[in-house]
Amino acid sequence: MLLVFAHNGLADTRPDTGLTPASIDHARQLRDLAMGGTMAWDIVESLTTEIGPRLAGSEAEARARAWAVRRLTAMGFDKVRIEPFEIQAWTRGAERAALLAPFPQPLEITALGGSVATPENGITAELALFEGIDALKAAAPGSLEGKIAYVSHAMQRSQDGSSYGFFGKLRREGASIAAQKGALAIMIRSIGTSSHRFAHTGQMRYAEDVAQIPAAALSNPDADQIERIARRGQPVQVYLNMSPESLGTVSSGNVIAEITGRERPEEVVIIGGHLDSWDQGTGAIDDGAGVAITTAAAKMILDAGKRPRRTIRLVLWGAEEVGLLGGKAYLEAHRKDLDKQIIGTESDFGAERVWQMTAQVSAEGQQVVDIMGELLAPIGVARGDMDKSGSGPDLTALVEAGLPSLRLVQNGMDYFDLHHTPDDTLDKIDPVALDQNVAAYVVFSWLAADSTVNFRSE
Amino acid sequence: MLLVFAHNGLADTRPDTGLTPASIDHARQLRDLAMGGTMAWDIVESLTTEIGPRLAGSEAEARARAWAVRRLTAMGFDKVRIEPFEIQAWTRGAERAALLAPFPQPLEITALGGSVATPENGITAELALFEGIDALKAAAPGSLEGKIAYVSHAMQRSQDGSSYGFFGKLRREGASIAAQKGALAIMIRSIGTSSHRFAHTGQMRYAEDVAQIPAAALSNPDADQIERIARRGQPVQVYLNMSPESLGTVSSGNVIAEITGRERPEEVVIIGGHLDSWDQGTGAIDDGAGVAITTAAAKMILDAGKRPRRTIRLVLWGAEEVGLLGGKAYLEAHRKDLDKQIIGTESDFGAERVWQMTAQVSAEGQQVVDIMGELLAPIGVARGDMDKSGSGPDLTALVEAGLPSLRLVQNGMDYFDLHHTPDDTLDKIDPVALDQNVAAYVVFSWLAADSTVNFRSE
Repeated sequence: MLLVFAHNGLADTRPDTGLTPASIDHARQLRDLAMGGTMAWDIVESLTTEIGPRLAGSEAEARARAWAVRRLTAMGFDKVRIEPFEIQAWTRGAERAALLAPFPQPLEITALGGSVATPENGITAELALFEGIDALKAAAPGSLEGKIAYVSHAMQRSQDGSSYGFFGKLRREGASIAAQKGALAIMIRSIGTSSHRFAHTGQMRYAEDVAQIPAAALSNPDADQIERIARRGQPVQVYLNMSPESLGTVSSGNVIAEITGRERPEEVVIIGGHLDSWDQGTGAIDDGAGVAITTAAAKMILDAGKRPRRTIRLVLWGAEEVGLLGGKAYLEAHRKDLDKQIIGTESDFGAERVWQMTAQVSAEGQQVVDIMGELLAPIGVARGDMDKSGSGPDLTALVEAGLPSLRLVQNGMDYFDLHHTPDDTLDKIDPVALDQNVAAYVVFSWLAADSTVNFRSE
Repeated sequence: MLLVFAHNGLADTRPDTGLTPASIDHARQLRDLAMGGTMAWDIVESLTTEIGPRLAGSEAEARARAWAVRRLTAMGFDKVRIEPFEIQAWTRGAERAALLAPFPQPLEITALGGSVATPENGITAELALFEGIDALKAAAPGSLEGKIAYVSHAMQRSQDGSSYGFFGKLRREGASIAAQKGALAIMIRSIGTSSHRFAHTGQMRYAEDVAQIPAAALSNPDADQIERIARRGQPVQVYLNMSPESLGTVSSGNVIAEITGRERPEEVVIIGGHLDSWDQGTGAIDDGAGVAITTAAAKMILDAGKRPRRTIRLVLWGAEEVGLLGGKAYLEAHRKDLDKQIIGTESDFGAERVWQMTAQVSAEGQQVVDIMGELLAPIGVARGDMDKSGSGPDLTALVEAGLPSLRLVQNGMDYFDLHHTPDDTLDKIDPVALDQNVAAYVVFSWLAADSTVNFRSE
């Protein structure tokens, strides 16, 4: 027996929004079609298999752009193109570390993105241990002379990923704080929650006017080991050898494809994920999934044959991992038509189901968001904050410049088990959860683009 | 309220076994004491932290022997000693592999134990893919000339670990089969079930009169990737570079400690685990756990102050991973008093709970096994086969030479997720499950040693 669900209220015309009953019904039908299966899995399978790792600025990232242009063109999107920009490239090199005393054994480490190399023969030094970034900051100037700073933290899993932002400061800023105290290098407990023997990489930054010292992350089991050993009271001596390199200026780019709007083609609704990944995994959950979810959603709208009033612009961002550079380049390239960027969101928090929607839009825009909410609730999406919202990292610069934002929040409880590790591979993705994400994105994309509201608050 | 369980039957004297009601009651009390908490965790914590990886024949394995002698002496055991033997040592060296075509990307591999090195500049060759060892065997002679054999398999988790023996043949014998067909090297899907990016190592052997070719394992996600790529139909080209070395003759040894029996000190009940481990993890579940469980059980019996009629001999075996060499050396050293080796068992299947007991003993011995079974049922141990039994790998040679065997079978469902990988670390062990194992070993050890039965079948 086929159970046909009744839906109430939405059949009414919504004159304030431009959304007709037929338009809302179209979104609902696309949603249900997506829940029954999409091409998202095929897309992420292709990207992670045929390209694999695609570090920002690398030849592999360039191959990923070519892959995207080829596929998006074949899919029939409008105006498929690359918007190029330049970045400073970095490459990992070899990396090796060991405990030398009191209990000699190898350590599983990885260089943080952007780290300088150790001297060729490595660094041998005693560890100075700190339980967190605040303890490191409190160390006396000069107190770390001749030592390697080891800094722990207590990041735990959180559904919304908010503990990453909080604890991630250590990865981003720790090296320069340690250098100010005289340290030769810094080794941190990975900013991540994997209980496996993987060190989590991720971008770090050097402050100006401070010595640039090598910065590495230890896997959580290795960090546990160091802390157990240190508690026994003897000095802990470590060897660290890493050879990352800066490669100078290279090309990156955002790949763009569109469904041109039927009434207001110059007005643009932005969706997308980022095409680059870290170099050790194949970038499946970060962010092959986001590329796949948003591409599949756009393709589904395209294939349904009705064009929305406004343009849907799919942006597959470049060089996200190394400083949100694709988002910044887009802002620079589009400063002149910023007011035509109507609303945007990015899928970049893994491949688990969307469980919440947040938004920050005008009162007028909120009417459309309310309709989205009604269509999303049946696929498990709750309403979250309607007065603040993320929008995905690549839109940060645009949102700061005034772009209205909405976020389809994925369940990130397990995201940091895989994030920025060699373990971020295709087998970790559940195709059914991926389809639910596509369903959420078709609802958002269609309704935002087929509406006439101004999402911008005055 | 304290709930005191009634127990039936066991209070009767068992004149045929030598076990008095007081003796059986002693075993029960020790069991309950163990369930309330043991020192097993502290032992495995110490071994994995203070020694870490301890490859057979390495300086680290020697440190582990010194650690064991020091601790067992301090615990008050009798006749703590090392029985040394010689082995051929092997060391891993560097290892690196990549897919070159059609989709260039790095591969996560590791050398199988005993593998020869590649030429210094590595091997670049096309893969010849096989779905399993039978398909490899069926390849025509000479058909793999100039190629690297890639061999998959479909090993899945199993509670009793029996699929490891079945599928493990590929790891042990694959290289020589591939060499017979002319292959330059062999790469296999890891014999293991980790879904993470770890290649499982483990010992392999070369057949005589066949070329010795390098043998590597790929992590399961990497094996999936290769198979996905191969299904696309283009030739798959791979680069493999490994530099393991044979180091010649070095020392290993079994560490032995005893609780001397009060009536028949020359009669010996053997328990233990193996002290060596693979070189990448810290050997927590394989086999720090077995060392800890059996040492804690023996120490608990020692501390209770009553000596059993027979001697309990704790053997911490050396060089298990590279060919059960400790067990073979023990057999050679004890050929003259084999008949005094009454019964034995080894803990070497991880750190999960004991769920089953199997045995292969005389009818007379079965009476004691029945009593063990009655005492073990309340801690979750079911009766398994009573006409065949394993006993742990290090006892294989002794059992073949006639030693009666019993096995306290651990739940191995997740064992091969960690087995022989860098991920075999302390954090994977549940202390509560460890204590239940100790409880099972005190029951076995005390009752076997305090009985007078002959476990040997005629």
